[in-house]
Amino acid sequence: MNLKEEALNIHKKLKGKIEINSKHPILTKEILSLLYTPGVAEVSKEIAKNKEKVYEYTSKWNTIAVVSDGSRVLGLGNIGAEAALPVMEGKALLFKLFGKVDAFPICLSTQNKEEIIEIIKNLTPSFGGINLEDIDSPKCFEIVDALNGHLYIPVYHDDQHGSGMVAVAGLINSLRVVGKKLNEVKVVVVGAGSAGYGTTVMLHAIGVKNILVVDSKGVIYSGREDLNKYKQKLADITNRERIEGDLTHALNGADVVIGFSGRVGLIKNEMIKKMSDDPIVFALTNPNPEIMPEDAKDAAIIATGRSDYPNQINNVLVFPAVMRGLLDVRAKKVNDEIFMSGTYALANIVKDELKKDYILPLPTDKRILPAVSNAVKEAAIKTGVNQA
Amino acid sequence: MNLKEEALNIHKKLKGKIEINSKHPILTKEILSLLYTPGVAEVSKEIAKNKEKVYEYTSKWNTIAVVSDGSRVLGLGNIGAEAALPVMEGKALLFKLFGKVDAFPICLSTQNKEEIIEIIKNLTPSFGGINLEDIDSPKCFEIVDALNGHLYIPVYHDDQHGSGMVAVAGLINSLRVVGKKLNEVKVVVVGAGSAGYGTTVMLHAIGVKNILVVDSKGVIYSGREDLNKYKQKLADITNRERIEGDLTHALNGADVVIGFSGRVGLIKNEMIKKMSDDPIVFALTNPNPEIMPEDAKDAAIIATGRSDYPNQINNVLVFPAVMRGLLDVRAKKVNDEIFMSGTYALANIVKDELKKDYILPLPTDKRILPAVSNAVKEAAIKTGVNQA
Repeated sequence: MNLKEEALNIHKKLKGKIEINSKHPILTKEILSLLYTPGVAEVSKEIAKNKEKVYEYTSKWNTIAVVSDGSRVLGLGNIGAEAALPVMEGKALLFKLFGKVDAFPICLSTQNKEEIIEIIKNLTPSFGGINLEDIDSPKCFEIVDALNGHLYIPVYHDDQHGSGMVAVAGLINSLRVVGKKLNEVKVVVVGAGSAGYGTTVMLHAIGVKNILVVDSKGVIYSGREDLNKYKQKLADITNRERIEGDLTHALNGADVVIGFSGRVGLIKNEMIKKMSDDPIVFALTNPNPEIMPEDAKDAAIIATGRSDYPNQINNVLVFPAVMRGLLDVRAKKVNDEIFMSGTYALANIVKDELKKDYILPLPTDKRILPAVSNAVKEAAIKTGVNQA
Repeated sequence: MNLKEEALNIHKKLKGKIEINSKHPILTKEILSLLYTPGVAEVSKEIAKNKEKVYEYTSKWNTIAVVSDGSRVLGLGNIGAEAALPVMEGKALLFKLFGKVDAFPICLSTQNKEEIIEIIKNLTPSFGGINLEDIDSPKCFEIVDALNGHLYIPVYHDDQHGSGMVAVAGLINSLRVVGKKLNEVKVVVVGAGSAGYGTTVMLHAIGVKNILVVDSKGVIYSGREDLNKYKQKLADITNRERIEGDLTHALNGADVVIGFSGRVGLIKNEMIKKMSDDPIVFALTNPNPEIMPEDAKDAAIIATGRSDYPNQINNVLVFPAVMRGLLDVRAKKVNDEIFMSGTYALANIVKDELKKDYILPLPTDKRILPAVSNAVKEAAIKTGVNQA
C-alpha cells in the first residue's frame, strides 16, 4: 500500500482522530448530581460572582481552538473548511501528545477577515488560547494584529510564529556548527507568506543585520511598487542597500538560504556554489523541498521539513510547548520576547551535541516540553503578559 | 459536606469535566505521518473533491456543539458565557455517557441574536449537529427558526424540543395510568418560555384539543395585547374559547397541569382539589418545584424534575438519544414528526410497567438509546430529512 491508500484507510477506520471524553472515571447518579444539575448551579454561581474562577472550575485553562478558514491548507491552497478539518484534527492530536493541551478544531465556512475576527472574539469564553492555522496571507497577519493583545487570551499563529521559531533555532545551531555569528551573516529568506514573514521578523529580532527576502517577483526592497503593509514591514527591516534582482542574484555570497517558497526544485546546487563558505541551506517547502538533500552537494548543512532526512525543521518542535507555557501562566497575548526565549530554549537543548546532521532535537525528545514551555512562561512573566 | 461544597470541590479537583483525546491508541512516528503530514494531505484532497467525504474521514459525523450565550442558565438567569461553561461541559458529559455523542461546549460572549445566528452558520463545517442551550426566549426561538432547515446540519433546541418531548411522554403514560384520552383532557401549561412553548406545541401536535397556557400575566388568549410572535402562536393553537384569568381560574376542572413557571411553591393543594378527577400534576421547575410531592396530597400523579422523588421528568431521557438518531442518518433538520416519534418511543418503553409512581423509565435504562434513536431515525427518513 502506498501513502495515500494507507492514510485514507486509517482515517476511514478511525472515523475521526479525536474524541471528547469525561475526565471523571465513573459517572454514578451521585457524581452526576454534582457535575450536572443540581450541583453545577453552585459552580455557575461562583463564576458569575468572579469570572476568573472559570479557570479553576472548567476545562478552559487547558483548552484551545485550532481555527482555520481553509483558505491555505498545507501546500494545497484554498480547499475550504471541510477539507481543512482532518488537518486541524491532526494538529489537535499533536497539541495533546506533545503539549498535554486539549485542542479543538474550529473550521469556519466564512473566509471574510472581519467575520473571522468577530467569531474568534465571541468564542473567547470557551478557550484559554487560540491557534490560527492555514489561513492565507496577508489576511492571517491582519487577523493576528486585530486579536492578539485585544482579548484576554493569547492568539498564536503557528504558520508565522512557530515556523519562525523553528527555522531560527535551526539557524542558531547551524551557525554554531560552522562557527559564524548571527550579526555577521547574510541570510536570504525565500517566500513572504506566513512562514517567510514570521522567520524574517524573528531573524531581525535576534540581531541578524543582513537579510534579503525574495518573493515571486524578486528581492523585496523599500520602494517596490506592489508591497502590501506586511511586505513593506519586511522591506523596512531588511535589504538596507535596496538591492533589486532575482533569487540567483540574492544568493551571491549569502551564508544562509531559508526557503518557504512553495516551489519544488527552486534551488539548484549551482546557486549554492555561489554562496559563501560553508553555505547553510534550509529547503522547507513541504512535502517536496526547494532542493533535495542529495542534490545539495555543496551545502555545509542542509535541512528540510521531511522526517525521512536528518535536520527536520518541523513546527511540532515548538507549538505544543509554546501553548503549554502560555496556558500555564494564563498569558493574555504573545510577543517577540516569548518567541525569542522559546527559540533559544529549543536550540540550547542540543547545544553540546551539535553536528552538521543534528542541528535540532527530534520531536520525540522529552527535554523539549519543559525547556521551551518554561522559557515561554518566564518571558511572559518578564514582559508582564501573564495573568497567573 | 453539603451539595455546594461537594460540587465546588469535585469541579476544582477535576479542573474541567471534559478532555479531548486521540482515538488512535498509540501514536508512533509512522502513524503520525498518516494522521498528520504528509498523509493527511491525501485525506484533505479527497474531501476537497467531494465535501461529503468529511463525514467518512473526520470526527464531524459524531461531533456537536452545545451552544449557549449564558443569557438564561438553569434557573439562574443571565449570568453570562463563562458562568454557563460548567453547565455546557456537564451537558457534554451526558451526551457522551447516554448517547455516545462527542459534544463540545461553545459559550459565546455575544448575546446579540443576529451575531449568534451568523456564528453558528459559520461553525457548521466542524459539527454534525447543534444543540442550543440556556438562551433566553423568545430569542432562542428566533435563532432556531433562522437556522433549523437553513443549514445542512440539524439545530436542536433542548430547552424547547427536549423539554416538550419528555413532558409529553410523561403525560401520555400518566393518562394511560388514570385511563383518560389525549383528545379529551384539559391541560394547563404554566410558563411560556422555551419549555412551556415546546411542550404546548408538542401537545397540540399529538392531538390534545383543550390547552390553556398561563404566563406571568395570566391565561394567554388571542387578542391579549402584549403577545410576541411566539405567544401569538400559542394563542392560535390553544384556548379556543378565549378564556381570560389567572392560574387558579385556569386550573378549575383541568385534568393536567404542567409547570415550567420558575416559581417555587406556585401551585397549592387547594388548586389541585379544584381540578377534575385523578388530577395529574407535573411541577417541573428546578431544583425547587411549583409544589413538593409531599404537599400535592390530592394529585393522582405527581412528577417533578428531581431525582430524589419518583417520576423524574428530565431532558436527559431524550436529548442524547435524539441527537444520536439525528447524527446516524445525517439529518439536515429537526421537525415535529421526529419529536413525536421519539416521544412515543420513550413512553412506550415502560408501557407495560406503568404505575402512578413510575410513568417514565429511569435515565439509566438501557432501552432508551436504541428505542428513541431508532424512532428518530425512522421519522427522519420518513420525512425525507435524512442525508445518509
